[in-house]
Amino acid sequence: MRRVSPDLQDLVKDLAVPTSSKIVLVVIDGLGGLPGDEGSTELEKAATPDLDTLARESICGMIDPIARGVTPGSGPAHLALFGYNPLEFQVGRGALAAAGIGFNLELDDVAARINFVTVDEEGKVADRRAGRISTETNKELCRLLNGMQLEGTQLFVRAVKEHRAVVVLRGRGLSDALSDSDPQKTGVAPIEVKALSPEANKTARIVNGFIQQAREILSGHYPANMILLRGFAKSPRLPSFLEIYRLRSAAIAAYPMYRGIAKLMGMDILVTGETVEEEFKTLRENFDKYDFFFLHIKGADSAGEDGDFKRKVKVIEEVDRNIPTLRHLAPEAIAVTGDHSTPSVLKVHSWHSVPFLLRSAWCRPDKVDKFSEEACLRQGGLGRFPAVEVMPLLLAHALKLTKYGA
Amino acid sequence: MRRVSPDLQDLVKDLAVPTSSKIVLVVIDGLGGLPGDEGSTELEKAATPDLDTLARESICGMIDPIARGVTPGSGPAHLALFGYNPLEFQVGRGALAAAGIGFNLELDDVAARINFVTVDEEGKVADRRAGRISTETNKELCRLLNGMQLEGTQLFVRAVKEHRAVVVLRGRGLSDALSDSDPQKTGVAPIEVKALSPEANKTARIVNGFIQQAREILSGHYPANMILLRGFAKSPRLPSFLEIYRLRSAAIAAYPMYRGIAKLMGMDILVTGETVEEEFKTLRENFDKYDFFFLHIKGADSAGEDGDFKRKVKVIEEVDRNIPTLRHLAPEAIAVTGDHSTPSVLKVHSWHSVPFLLRSAWCRPDKVDKFSEEACLRQGGLGRFPAVEVMPLLLAHALKLTKYGA
Repeated sequence: MRRVSPDLQDLVKDLAVPTSSKIVLVVIDGLGGLPGDEGSTELEKAATPDLDTLARESICGMIDPIARGVTPGSGPAHLALFGYNPLEFQVGRGALAAAGIGFNLELDDVAARINFVTVDEEGKVADRRAGRISTETNKELCRLLNGMQLEGTQLFVRAVKEHRAVVVLRGRGLSDALSDSDPQKTGVAPIEVKALSPEANKTARIVNGFIQQAREILSGHYPANMILLRGFAKSPRLPSFLEIYRLRSAAIAAYPMYRGIAKLMGMDILVTGETVEEEFKTLRENFDKYDFFFLHIKGADSAGEDGDFKRKVKVIEEVDRNIPTLRHLAPEAIAVTGDHSTPSVLKVHSWHSVPFLLRSAWCRPDKVDKFSEEACLRQGGLGRFPAVEVMPLLLAHALKLTKYGA
Repeated sequence: MRRVSPDLQDLVKDLAVPTSSKIVLVVIDGLGGLPGDEGSTELEKAATPDLDTLARESICGMIDPIARGVTPGSGPAHLALFGYNPLEFQVGRGALAAAGIGFNLELDDVAARINFVTVDEEGKVADRRAGRISTETNKELCRLLNGMQLEGTQLFVRAVKEHRAVVVLRGRGLSDALSDSDPQKTGVAPIEVKALSPEANKTARIVNGFIQQAREILSGHYPANMILLRGFAKSPRLPSFLEIYRLRSAAIAAYPMYRGIAKLMGMDILVTGETVEEEFKTLRENFDKYDFFFLHIKGADSAGEDGDFKRKVKVIEEVDRNIPTLRHLAPEAIAVTGDHSTPSVLKVHSWHSVPFLLRSAWCRPDKVDKFSEEACLRQGGLGRFPAVEVMPLLLAHALKLTKYGA
C-alpha cells in the first residue's frame, strides 16, 4: 500500500490515454457578469439561440476560477481552466507580459514589466501613466532603450500597449530574485532594485544600470521621462498538454497574451484573424490536425472593462452566431465558459463564478434551457465547482480517461 | 495557534463515540446511469415506490466517487464510501484480486493477478484471453500450477474467472516492489519481472522461476499455454472500522470481491445467499449483533456492464421490494447509494455522480420526492459532494459524533 495524495492533475496524468476524439474549449474572456440597468446580466440580455440549444444538450454548472471571493488575473484564470493549480504554478508578471507580446523567453531569460512614467524635477513619480502616451510613442521609446549590453547580458525592450512595455535580460547566471523599482504610488522616487538572494547580485547591478541609462536617454522625452520595473520573472516550466493529457493541442486567439499563455503549455499557435468569425474559421480549417482546441474570445472582457454593457452583449451574440460552425464539426466534447467574470458595472475582473456548459454524447442532461448565470447556477447538473476540474471533466466526456484503480 | 490540516477521517476518528444506534449502508453497485432510448436513466425508469417514500423522508444528494471526471474501479469506489481517501489508501490489483476470491492475505504475502494467455511459437503473446477459456479450464490449470516451493516460499495459485487467476507468495522477506510481466499488448513476448528496489531481488527471482515452470507446465495446454503477471501487492493495512469509527461492523455481499474489500476494514463477513432478498434476510437475522451494516448488491453493475438496461431496471426494482424489511428494522441511519455509475449505454464504469439518500430522524428534509439522478441533483439538500463524506454524515445522523472543539 502506498500512502500518497497526488493532486488532481497528477491523477489525470496517470489516467489519460491518447484517442481520436476531439475537445474544443471556447473561452469567452470575462463572460460572467452582473445585472445592468434592466436587471439582466450581459449573458442573460444577449440573444443566444444557439448557445441556449447547446446548453439544453449539455450538462452545465458554475465555475470558480481560483476560490470563492478571489478575482483572478488572466494568467491564473487560464492556468486553472487548463487544469494547472494556479496557486501552485505561478507565472510571474514579467513572464506573462513577455508571453503576452509573443516574445519567446529562453530558459534563463529574466523578464520584467516596464511602465513609462513621468517624474518631476526632484525625480519623484508624478504620473504613473506618463500622460497616457500612445502605443506609437511607446514603440519609439522602446527602440531607444532596446539593445543595451551590460556585463555580457543582452537587453531587449519591447512595447506592449500605451504606457506598458517589457524588458528581457538574456545572459549567463541571471536570477529573477529581485525587488521591484516601482513604488506603486506617486510623490516618491523610484526604488533601487535589490537582490533578494546573493545569486541575484549581478542581475540587480545590470538592472539598475539599465534604469540609470534609461533615465538619461528619456530625460528629454517628457512626459515619458522615466521607467518603473516590476515583476521580475523567468519563464515558468509547465508540463505540457501532451505530457499530462496526451493531447495534441492548439490555440486560436486573436490577442497575443492568450497565445503566449497557451504556448507555456506547449500548445501550437494557429494563425488567425481579428474577428470571432475568423477564429472559428481557423478552427474549422485545422480541425483534423489536433485533439484539443483552445479558442479564446477577448472582446467580452474588453467591453466589460470599458463598462460597455451593450458591447459585451454584442460580443456574446457574435459568439452565438458562430456556434453552428462548432456544432457542425461535432467534436466529442465541447465546453463554453469564461476565464472569469468582468461585469460591465464593475469595469474590472471580478471574483464572481462563471457559467459553464459541457456538451458530449455522454453527459447526463440537466434542466438548463438557457445559457445564463441564473440557469447554470440553479439547474446546472455540475453544480458549482473549481475551474481546475474542467479539464478532467472534458477528458472524461471525450472518453480519454481510463479507470482509477482495480 | 497550530496550523494543522488533519484529513477528514482523522477528525472523525477523534469525534466518534460508540452508541447503541445502528447504521445501514446499502450499496447498489453501478447505480448511476445515463438516459436510455426513452430518455430516462435506469433508476428513473424503475418503479421504486418504497425507495421513493424513503427519499421523501431523507436528505438526498449526488456523490462523486473520487473526483469530477474520474472513473473509479471497485476498490477505490468502496474505499471512498467507507471514508478512506482513495488517493491516499491504494489497494494493489493483486491484493484486490486475492480479496475478491476470499483468499486471506497474511501480513507479508505478495499477491499478483494472473492472466492465462496464448503465446505463439516465438513466445509472443497472441491472445490476451487465451481464447476465452472457461472458468472450469482455468481451475484445472490452477491446480497444475498450485503448490510450488521456491527458495522456501510457498506459492498458491487460485482461479478467479474465465482467463483470470491469482498467485500468492508466502515466505520470508518478500517484497511487492516488482514490475509486471504483462506487456499489455499482443505481438511481443512477456517481460521478465524486475525488482524495483534491492529488497525485491529475491522475490523477483522466485516469480521469474514460477513463470518459467508455468511455461513448461502449460506448454501442452494450448490455447492457455502461458501466464502474464501484474499488480504485485501486499495486503494494504487499513485502519479498521472499529478503530476509526468505533463501529462493530458487518458486510453482507453475495459477491466475494466485496466481502474481500469489507474484510480489509475489519468488517465481519456474514454468510448470505445469492439473491437480494437473501441479503436483506441476512440483515434482519443479524441486526442485533452489529452497529453498522454494509449491504452490497452486485446485479445493477453487472447488468450495466452487459449493456442490459432492462435488467438493471429489474435489479433496482428488486432492491425496492426489500426496502420494507429495512424500514421495519428501523436503524437510526439508512443510506442508499451506489459506489459509482455504470450506465448501460456505456457498458463500463463511468465518472458520473451517483444518487444518494440518507434517512434518519435527524435529517433536514429536502424536496426530493423520487429517488432519481434528476431529483437528487436538483432538489437534494446535500448537494453534490465527495463520497468520502458519506461516513461522517452517516455517523452524525446516527448521533455517533461528538462536538469538535469547545
